[in-house]
Amino acid sequence: MIRGRVVGRYWATKKIEHIPSGAFLEVESHGGGRMIAFDVLGCGEGEDVLIVTGSTAASWLGGGKIPIDALIIGSLDETTKSKSK
Amino acid sequence: MIRGRVVGRYWATKKIEHIPSGAFLEVESHGGGRMIAFDVLGCGEGEDVLIVTGSTAASWLGGGKIPIDALIIGSLDETTKSKSK
Amino acid sequence: MIRGRVVGRYWATKKIEHIPSGAFLEVESHGGGRMIAFDVLGCGEGEDVLIVTGSTAASWLGGGKIPIDALIIGSLDETTKSKSK
Amino acid sequence: MIRGRVVGRYWATKKIEHIPSGAFLEVESHGGGRMIAFDVLGCGEGEDVLIVTGSTAASWLGGGKIPIDALIIGSLDETTKSKSK
Amino acid sequence: MIRGRVVGRYWATKKIEHIPSGAFLEVESHGGGRMIAFDVLGCGEGEDVLIVTGSTAASWLGGGKIPIDALIIGSLDETTKSKSK
Repeated sequence: MIRGRVVGRYWATKKIEHIPSGAFLEVESHGGGRMIAFDVLGCGEGEDVLIVTGSTAASWLGGGKIPIDALIIGSLDETTKSKSK
Repeated sequence: MIRGRVVGRYWATKKIEHIPSGAFLEVESHGGGRMIAFDVLGCGEGEDVLIVTGSTAASWLGGGKIPIDALIIGSLDETTKSKSK
Repeated sequence: MIRGRVVGRYWATKKIEHIPSGAFLEVESHGGGRMIAFDVLGCGEGEDVLIVTGSTAASWLGGGKIPIDALIIGSLDETTKSKSK
Repeated sequence: MIRGRVVGRYWATKKIEHIPSGAFLEVESHGGGRMIAFDVLGCGEGEDVLIVTGSTAASWLGGGKIPIDALIIGSLDETTKSKSK
Repeated sequence: MIRGRVVGRYWATKKIEHIPSGAFLEVESHGGGRMIAFDVLGCGEGEDVLIVTGSTAASWLGGGKIPIDALIIGSLDETTKSKSK
């Protein structure tokens, strides 16, 4: 999984079918890169989250034709301790 | 998902079977890299899009033998706000 | 598989469903990057581990809706020899 | 998909089972990296090709035990136009 | 597929279930990075190999709960010719 911080949100009126209810959040990963992750937990800017990528994201959302490859699976507790860089 | 901007289009007369109807668009990602994504929405150059990659792209297109691993799932609204770099 | 060393642990009280029992460990890979891997072996900080990523991780855990894409599959023996950089 | 140019070919007499008929071509991607892609179209050195990666490549070839994760799906037309870097 | 050279071997006494018979070999890829690939061909140090990654590796080994995401599919012939960097 990737650890990152929510930094923005995107909207797409022109889109393909089978996108479930939720938000497209932009997340900056620990390493500095940015990606768009799908969120069903109601996360907000500044929140530290865990993201799962690949077909696993679509499977959790129901699989089949769901076109999502990055999903926020949790929000990190503030009490989390780690020898972070 | 990857956020990027459409910068070109490719054609392939010599190709394998089971490629669906659509366009091969070149997209420059936010991070600077380039990839070829399949488009069924009719996106054009300069448009900001969201791309899903991996087997999820083929699944949305019908799965099975469809040889596509990158699909444009939406075009970003101009009103989208984000603390972009 | 990726070889890495456990450097921390994360907790997520706010999370989606279908996350199995286990720990979210932060691992620093041989190349220097960091990722979060799911652990069911009870690994601790400083331990050198092997990590499998992608849908293979979810499949081992039972597949279906399990939202995990990185799993520690083993802890490297201290007697392991390699021409490491 | 990845866009690249064929730069070489490899043979493997010692190999596992279930590798289909075709060639292992070395391709230099637009970004400069190199990979080995499986080819069933008879592409040659200097040809610009599109490559699909991951389980999608194996699925097109028949799925199951086929151990191929990169497949050339087409050869780019010379008339292709793009704002290439 | 990735082309690389075998540079070491790892053992893991403490491991999860469903790991098949074979060896965990460390491989240095053409680009310089290192990864651990599963080997059933009996490859040794210094051998140039082709590696398939992702769920395709597990599928060849039988699929289901097999937690392997990188598999050596062949050893490159010495007579192989390529415009290598």
